[in-house]
Amino acid sequence: MSAINRQWTLVKRPEGDDFAAALKWQETPKPVPQVGQALVRTVSLSLDPANRLWMKEEPSYIPPVPLGGPMWGGIIGIVEESRTPEYTPGELVTGLGGWADYKLAGPGEMSKVTPIPGVPLTAFQSVLGATGLTAYFGLLDVAKPKAGETLVVSAAAGAVGSIVGQLGKIKGCNVIGIAGSAEKCARLVHEFGFDHAIDYRKEDVRARLAELAPARADGGGGVDMYFENVGGEIGNAVYENLAMRARIVLCGLISQYNTVGTPVGADLTKVLMRRATMHGYLILDYFSRAPEAVAELAGWVAEGKIRYDEDIVDGLEHTLEAFKRLFAPGGAHTGKLIVQVSEPTL
Amino acid sequence: MSAINRQWTLVKRPEGDDFAAALKWQETPKPVPQVGQALVRTVSLSLDPANRLWMKEEPSYIPPVPLGGPMWGGIIGIVEESRTPEYTPGELVTGLGGWADYKLAGPGEMSKVTPIPGVPLTAFQSVLGATGLTAYFGLLDVAKPKAGETLVVSAAAGAVGSIVGQLGKIKGCNVIGIAGSAEKCARLVHEFGFDHAIDYRKEDVRARLAELAPARADGGGGVDMYFENVGGEIGNAVYENLAMRARIVLCGLISQYNTVGTPVGADLTKVLMRRATMHGYLILDYFSRAPEAVAELAGWVAEGKIRYDEDIVDGLEHTLEAFKRLFAPGGAHTGKLIVQVSEPTL
Repeated sequence: MSAINRQWTLVKRPEGDDFAAALKWQETPKPVPQVGQALVRTVSLSLDPANRLWMKEEPSYIPPVPLGGPMWGGIIGIVEESRTPEYTPGELVTGLGGWADYKLAGPGEMSKVTPIPGVPLTAFQSVLGATGLTAYFGLLDVAKPKAGETLVVSAAAGAVGSIVGQLGKIKGCNVIGIAGSAEKCARLVHEFGFDHAIDYRKEDVRARLAELAPARADGGGGVDMYFENVGGEIGNAVYENLAMRARIVLCGLISQYNTVGTPVGADLTKVLMRRATMHGYLILDYFSRAPEAVAELAGWVAEGKIRYDEDIVDGLEHTLEAFKRLFAPGGAHTGKLIVQVSEPTL
Repeated sequence: MSAINRQWTLVKRPEGDDFAAALKWQETPKPVPQVGQALVRTVSLSLDPANRLWMKEEPSYIPPVPLGGPMWGGIIGIVEESRTPEYTPGELVTGLGGWADYKLAGPGEMSKVTPIPGVPLTAFQSVLGATGLTAYFGLLDVAKPKAGETLVVSAAAGAVGSIVGQLGKIKGCNVIGIAGSAEKCARLVHEFGFDHAIDYRKEDVRARLAELAPARADGGGGVDMYFENVGGEIGNAVYENLAMRARIVLCGLISQYNTVGTPVGADLTKVLMRRATMHGYLILDYFSRAPEAVAELAGWVAEGKIRYDEDIVDGLEHTLEAFKRLFAPGGAHTGKLIVQVSEPTL
């Protein structure tokens, strides 16, 4: 490969969605591994809503990305050179890397990827990666669905949401997805098998949920489980329709991440009245249990019970414009967004 | 007693805290029990923040109080006449009654009160009533305190909050109370044994909590348990300082009850990041377990481990002005607010 390390450098904390001002394309020399390090070439880069949080000055669940270095992201990479027995040239690894051609990996920073025949490598960044694991543990371990219950998913056409809904169907639930365009809603029902879809840009989410999952006079009915990816007005519309003892998986608050000023806060009145439980949830806490999830998810994918979308962008230079699409309301983005940076071979 | 039934009639749904326009003093004839009913005379009436919710058009956890009848409230009463074997004249009962001299009680509506020698009857509406039970089950059963953990309580000088904090001390916690005046804060520390108190009208709650319960670099520290009575800005200041895997008992949102327009919503960012759990909680669900709590609370009261305040107002005619005090920010009210309506004797 080239002796140049192309990278998107985080030069300032972005305001709102002005990512163009915050990230600058730079070319620096290819780094040289020291003793104990390996040189990892980025094969593919995962772009995720949570990356937006990492850009903030305030720490999220990981420290803020330092200014002046490459933006961070989940990568699959190939070891090009190694000065440690932990990594062997030619092997595929995954972990936190940068929006860059190269990363120097120290001990314990990357874990091995063992390709599955017939499964594209990118699946380890989508349905078999953090995306699929987020859906899997959030729904199955936190919300604990029972057949016949009503599950609502926001950002339902997104990479996580579309898998959550399909897992809900596997478990026999009545699944309602909320998404931001007629096209996405059609896909939820016709491709992903959701029972219902609500277009939040055209429909009154609160009123539609009251029709689709009505609370009954006996205290039954309503939304038993809510997989929360967005927060804000959409979240509040769902909270208004909670069932008694509903479970809310608080997985993301994408409506808040770009907000300048005070975001729309959560109205907790019905969370209280309905004795709901809300669980702050990050997949970080479940990585040690990844093998069980990967095995089960791979089985469902092989059986055709889970479909997954990948939105693969070719070339590191297109990372910035791809990232912007993640935050376009009701916009063009569907499927797990991945940037293909190089080939997975030496 | 008189042949007149004095009552506060709910004539309209109040706007904000304009209770004077919503409640009218009326005198009607003393009601006559039918077969299957008992005539119960109100001895004492409990006034609670949640009563405000019952006044709204929208159902809360009980149906809205109908317009044109007496406002509802928890009462202790004495059976004056009975046309059912379930109730015997002269016995003391408790349950949902009205802001009125009399109530006609049907089957199963009231439960018996067995006085404890040396304990005032009003204790069954404070530390041994719904107030004490709310504190007891919310802290011990929902939050499940462990010795050495940090517990924060809002509306800490209130009837529920002051007991929550004392239970926290019994369990060996570091207890921080938030209240609305220097006088209340002094009482929290000196009378109720809290470790610290924050005056939200004078101090920056967020910054003070960061000092009193600092998050540590190893991920420890912060607020392990938050007993939420108020919501709004105060709630958000606490959420900002949550410990990893904090437990939030969502017991009340008094800052929202009188709001005209959009109240300040909850910022759930840290609830997510810190993997906190928030539990909507109502004492209704625990009434069947009251005996175990009453026994333990009565023991702690007898041992002097729990002090409780009662703010007893004499005379049904003063109910409206007393109720207003419940919602005066940082105001004059401390202790469980009870209206003494008549003597507990025939």
